[in-house]
Amino acid sequence: MLRPGVGIVGDVSFPVVGVVGAGQLARMMAPAAIALGVRLRVLARDGADSAAQVVPDVDVGDEGDLEALRRFAKGCDVLTFDHEHVPTDHLRLLQRDGVVVRPDPDALVHAQDKSVMRARMAELGVPCPRWELVGAVEELDAFGTDVGWPVVLKTPRGGYDGKGVRVVGSADEARDWLRTLGPGERLLAEERVRFGRELAVLVARSPHGQAAVYPVVQTVQVDGICREVLAPAAISEAHALSAQAVALRIADGLGVTGMLAVEMFDTDAGVLVNELAMRPHNSGHWTIEGARTSQFEQHLRAILDLPLGETTMTAAHVAMSNVLGGAIEDMYAGYLHCMAHDPGVHLHMYGKVVRPGRKVGHATTLGEDAEDVRARARHAAAFLRGDIHE
Amino acid sequence: MLRPGVGIVGDVSFPVVGVVGAGQLARMMAPAAIALGVRLRVLARDGADSAAQVVPDVDVGDEGDLEALRRFAKGCDVLTFDHEHVPTDHLRLLQRDGVVVRPDPDALVHAQDKSVMRARMAELGVPCPRWELVGAVEELDAFGTDVGWPVVLKTPRGGYDGKGVRVVGSADEARDWLRTLGPGERLLAEERVRFGRELAVLVARSPHGQAAVYPVVQTVQVDGICREVLAPAAISEAHALSAQAVALRIADGLGVTGMLAVEMFDTDAGVLVNELAMRPHNSGHWTIEGARTSQFEQHLRAILDLPLGETTMTAAHVAMSNVLGGAIEDMYAGYLHCMAHDPGVHLHMYGKVVRPGRKVGHATTLGEDAEDVRARARHAAAFLRGDIHE
Repeated sequence: MLRPGVGIVGDVSFPVVGVVGAGQLARMMAPAAIALGVRLRVLARDGADSAAQVVPDVDVGDEGDLEALRRFAKGCDVLTFDHEHVPTDHLRLLQRDGVVVRPDPDALVHAQDKSVMRARMAELGVPCPRWELVGAVEELDAFGTDVGWPVVLKTPRGGYDGKGVRVVGSADEARDWLRTLGPGERLLAEERVRFGRELAVLVARSPHGQAAVYPVVQTVQVDGICREVLAPAAISEAHALSAQAVALRIADGLGVTGMLAVEMFDTDAGVLVNELAMRPHNSGHWTIEGARTSQFEQHLRAILDLPLGETTMTAAHVAMSNVLGGAIEDMYAGYLHCMAHDPGVHLHMYGKVVRPGRKVGHATTLGEDAEDVRARARHAAAFLRGDIHE
Repeated sequence: MLRPGVGIVGDVSFPVVGVVGAGQLARMMAPAAIALGVRLRVLARDGADSAAQVVPDVDVGDEGDLEALRRFAKGCDVLTFDHEHVPTDHLRLLQRDGVVVRPDPDALVHAQDKSVMRARMAELGVPCPRWELVGAVEELDAFGTDVGWPVVLKTPRGGYDGKGVRVVGSADEARDWLRTLGPGERLLAEERVRFGRELAVLVARSPHGQAAVYPVVQTVQVDGICREVLAPAAISEAHALSAQAVALRIADGLGVTGMLAVEMFDTDAGVLVNELAMRPHNSGHWTIEGARTSQFEQHLRAILDLPLGETTMTAAHVAMSNVLGGAIEDMYAGYLHCMAHDPGVHLHMYGKVVRPGRKVGHATTLGEDAEDVRARARHAAAFLRGDIHE
């Protein structure tokens, strides 16, 4: 699918970064790559994928197909990811072929498998909710009796945006799910934490060990889907520093290269780590306009082992509101109102066909007043989606 | 050259913008288009052109070829430009075909033909250097005797970056050039203005008449090539307002749609208009990080008749230094030093093969202290080019 000539023109000293997956994260890497002159190649499941629409150098193939991965990796200086769905073993085989994979599969596995992650967090002494692997109703029942109901059940691999997660009030409610497990398969049962709010910390780390941490943000999730991100989180400086320290310890302990997003529960007893992602993350979209270096540029710099950029904010407060698919199919129709209403709103659309609940874009606002900034981002997202009409 | 599937995928309600020309200006429109979901198509002279490397939807053809323009314009919702080299008459024929051309050729001609521009500025009462069209040595001699030598001679059409411009100390020095003129052709002779500094004002204007003006900047030119841009210019607020008023008057008077850059001489008697460009301009590259809305997003918004974005600065001072081709061919080699030296520097490379004096990229810095910000941008550009080694 490569247009003739592309990839061998211009200043050929610039590296080629291959991104497995062509969703909005790969799409938002493109502007950073264009500015730096870094050549981006994406492996898309479909030529119409979000990033495939805006990157000239596209391979179509499945990330589960080793040969497709091998073809794709050829000529890439570094391989990185838009998602966590590439089999870890495939990545190890690519490394044996000489492909530079960042993050390293030994690190990435902690973002792919929640049970591996939980075990490693315990080794690192990172505070987490209580957890247990359960394969049978009796095991879940014992865990729930111990930590208290309800309990959060998760599939260790492959869940996202609320999929593969269930909150159960008794072991009985999970009987059907547990029955579907193959031999040796187990679910991850976690204590349902009573939290004041959810926080996220983004860290970039490069192969030679430099790390850069972003201000702690608050994330607002509804049904397991991120709806809003507020930067910085309204917490004390000491509390923010301790959350950042946890994220830095994880980045270093796991040997992450590239962006790491650490999602946390904020509780009376301190932060507890919820999930990890090793790529640019929804909780960092605000950095495109809101930080001196966006998470997308930072990811490229980190995986290319370039020195990392400044993470300071460009305004006192930044809010990001996701645009989910709703009543309106034509996402461009709302631009006129949104831009006239608020000349400072930054609209991002991913080129995705609108389906109910699907993340199709986001709106970012910046300013001096946290509540005002939040209201503006919400307004834009709600208007585009069709929830409000003025 | 269009990859199958591109242009008819995703959310098809978004407009297609066709850019004639595929240099760095079209290239830097791409990130803005990606964010907004606007579909970009470029007409490149060569598939290896700067913007053609990063945009999937590329047509190869010459902007002087009417049929190539017609093919290219088909399916574009709006046609716009990376340069001024499209024949005005071709654009009028495209308009007759129903193509939406922005800026309108009746406006664009003022950026294409300096003699048309000078005559119109006089009508609008816009302050300009004294000028005269000269076709013979005697005419030039009379003009020079009147305004004083040396005199600046310009070809009315096709000059750029110091090309097509000559400073002459006597009519005799232009004898060879004047001899090459065809029947009816004349050169534009202009008074050589004694200026304190050069200024530039960027204005965006949309078809329904909304205009947005950016802070006045100082440009530093060497041999007719822009080397540095300093925002804001160190001038009084009253002086800045009067320069902005001149730019707004021109935008309105000419019916500009899209970005207009007005280059000015700053003299003891006020500003005098030097040149016009109707597209994103080198004097506005700083807006990518330095203003809430970049000139590239603003241009897209203006030509699509969307409401314009905020033009306020994101820092007290911003400096942009062009990277010209020098001793070093590998522009990536300097990234390690530049980024380690200054985590706040923003590097932009255009994917162009390095040739001496050619604009191949730029560096932007932001901060509180004007001199420090300027020194940082200069350092990065000089290091990348190979002028300094530490």
